[in-house]
Amino acid sequence: MANKLNIGLFGFGCVGQGLYHVLNNSSGFTSNITKIAVKDKSKPRTLGSDIFTFNKYDILDNPEINVIVELIDDADEAFEIVKYAIQKGKHVVTANKKLVATHLQELYELQKKHNVSLLYEASTCGSIPIIRTLEEYFDNEQLNKVSGIFNGTTNYILTKTITDKISYQIALKQAQEKGFAESDPTSDVEGFDSKYKAIIIALHAFGVFAKPNDVLNIGITTLHDNDIKYASEKGYKIKLVPTIKHTDNKVSMYVLPKFIKQENPLFFVENEFNGVIVEGEFSGEQFLKGRGAGGHPTGAAVLSDISALSYEYKYAFKKLNQTLKNTIDNNIFIKAYIRYNTLINLEVLGADQIFEQYTGEDYHYAVALVNINQLLLQRDYILKNNLFIAELGEGVSATVKKSIANEALEISQAE
Amino acid sequence: MANKLNIGLFGFGCVGQGLYHVLNNSSGFTSNITKIAVKDKSKPRTLGSDIFTFNKYDILDNPEINVIVELIDDADEAFEIVKYAIQKGKHVVTANKKLVATHLQELYELQKKHNVSLLYEASTCGSIPIIRTLEEYFDNEQLNKVSGIFNGTTNYILTKTITDKISYQIALKQAQEKGFAESDPTSDVEGFDSKYKAIIIALHAFGVFAKPNDVLNIGITTLHDNDIKYASEKGYKIKLVPTIKHTDNKVSMYVLPKFIKQENPLFFVENEFNGVIVEGEFSGEQFLKGRGAGGHPTGAAVLSDISALSYEYKYAFKKLNQTLKNTIDNNIFIKAYIRYNTLINLEVLGADQIFEQYTGEDYHYAVALVNINQLLLQRDYILKNNLFIAELGEGVSATVKKSIANEALEISQAE
Repeated sequence: MANKLNIGLFGFGCVGQGLYHVLNNSSGFTSNITKIAVKDKSKPRTLGSDIFTFNKYDILDNPEINVIVELIDDADEAFEIVKYAIQKGKHVVTANKKLVATHLQELYELQKKHNVSLLYEASTCGSIPIIRTLEEYFDNEQLNKVSGIFNGTTNYILTKTITDKISYQIALKQAQEKGFAESDPTSDVEGFDSKYKAIIIALHAFGVFAKPNDVLNIGITTLHDNDIKYASEKGYKIKLVPTIKHTDNKVSMYVLPKFIKQENPLFFVENEFNGVIVEGEFSGEQFLKGRGAGGHPTGAAVLSDISALSYEYKYAFKKLNQTLKNTIDNNIFIKAYIRYNTLINLEVLGADQIFEQYTGEDYHYAVALVNINQLLLQRDYILKNNLFIAELGEGVSATVKKSIANEALEISQAE
Repeated sequence: MANKLNIGLFGFGCVGQGLYHVLNNSSGFTSNITKIAVKDKSKPRTLGSDIFTFNKYDILDNPEINVIVELIDDADEAFEIVKYAIQKGKHVVTANKKLVATHLQELYELQKKHNVSLLYEASTCGSIPIIRTLEEYFDNEQLNKVSGIFNGTTNYILTKTITDKISYQIALKQAQEKGFAESDPTSDVEGFDSKYKAIIIALHAFGVFAKPNDVLNIGITTLHDNDIKYASEKGYKIKLVPTIKHTDNKVSMYVLPKFIKQENPLFFVENEFNGVIVEGEFSGEQFLKGRGAGGHPTGAAVLSDISALSYEYKYAFKKLNQTLKNTIDNNIFIKAYIRYNTLINLEVLGADQIFEQYTGEDYHYAVALVNINQLLLQRDYILKNNLFIAELGEGVSATVKKSIANEALEISQAE
């Protein structure tokens, strides 16, 4: 029943070595890594030189190799490799979230056209089997929301700064030393990495193709002690939370810091761990937690995809092919905390309803309804002015915005 | 690609009605419930009478029906139905944990012999896709341990008695009113239900067939205020925790109350929720949480199995078919809290090492290493004497027992 897999591996870094270790330590498995393509000729390797090649076509044009496992950093180069491999009729397993999210629709069309399997469980939330769970378990159930902590680096930094009270810079350095954060952590701390994962999840949970440029990502780079103080006083933790919501065949999505209370299971997802909350129409709230970073957890996810290939597994993309199509609509309002140091016009953020406002000597904040589309347009302004924005409570759609605003008004008048 | 499923449904209680609702509210689904077999002729039904039958052979001998969904209470009757259906070449989906656990090996052989698919995701931990995750995602990875909260009724009672400080009897009554607990709650509160689920999980996680009589289950019926006081003072919550552990091709398993600290994700699994911790050799600790009881969550799990059938899905039982077979060995020692009201000889429980002992006016307790096999032999003695036993910390194997004992001795001497 199981097919023999001859694997060509691209990249032999942390995850590649983890995978090699996992493959050689799992029983009952009929696959072998035939060739490994690497870039750096001078780097010492833990395996003999005959398994390595520096020419990608040694693997891509080898008809004996039927599976490509792509684990390199460079998303553009990775895309060339994956595209070429699919066109050659090879199955592909990749852990590269940027590659997958950026070219999601093209890759979907390609794997369909060439009738191969493209799997990328390891690209999203490390060892948590979220893509497979959405594909296989929630394939027929309408989901209302998927949210969570998708990035181990930022969660490590937030845990250390908020719970352990150490500085952002020291926490970042620690994350880099532990191998969670890249030497350039921009993609992590500015929320791009979380956004790529949200885009991948949105396809499998709601059947939509979102483009990275159309999705808001605001990270944790502008977090200040005053924000931590505000959160702590009110019993919140601050987490970087990508959110994908579904109402009436419309899907909205964004990546923002969020103030989280103890009732939310993400409150207890600390350090490099990831957590995903799936809210199903019938099954209710499901929570999955696991290690979001590191060679072995990611290697195990890649292994699981390789194993699935040996049984000819392919994603069915059922949510994409359902009768009632969803469309993306980010013209929604969420309740947010906005901290700013110089006085700004909050209307720039689409805030037409302000619930609270504080003006202090050296900083100010407001709690207001803000518009996701407007935040996307004003992303540069937000970063340039060092604003910190965090979601508070749950999001609200444009249609219910007014009623919430009215209700808030009534409450404030009653008090 | 998808096969047309003609479903014969047995039982139209809470879960059956939930399923009917879910099936009629999910898009893109090609299956229909052709006939429903029920027992009680006098009961008013929410559907027209022509879909119902009181004769099981109307469904079982109907060649048009290719899938049986079995959702009745009576495990013996359910076994007759499932066995007959499999022999007739029909696929079966069941939510009955007692049925599956009690006849696991026979059912495995039967579905293999008749080349049909027998799926039972809904039997284990409600809406948490644990069987599928073990089968599909951890199929090639060696697991070290699976533990968790598998029973919503006991967890509801424990949450109410410990966190909300209401009495055991009132909590049980509430659970019954909310539809989590059966009118006879014995199977839940004495840990049988948790044990059935642990036996099912043990097959998919470790490839072993355990018989219910060979597995220890001690529930929460002897829980006393003094135990809650002891736990609270030390920052513990008490949960009913089935544990299945794997070391050196040996698998041990038992169901016991456990003292849980805040570091354990089960600490925050409250009310009727279930949680499962899967510890993989490479992927590390995975945690899944979801609703463990109720018509809709269980119905959603049954739906997911039906959906899988439409794609000809079968469990692969890879852990059972791996080269190195595991065997069951419960000759292990765990560290436990034992509370007793009349003086007993702790050696009866295989306790040869006592770390702490308290003798009071009206109750006593000890913290000691106890032997799981010995507890199994003494189950009646434990219940008769109203002992409360709870695991403390992690289990230890027989081989390391002595070194722990020595270490504890050294620590106590050093203090």
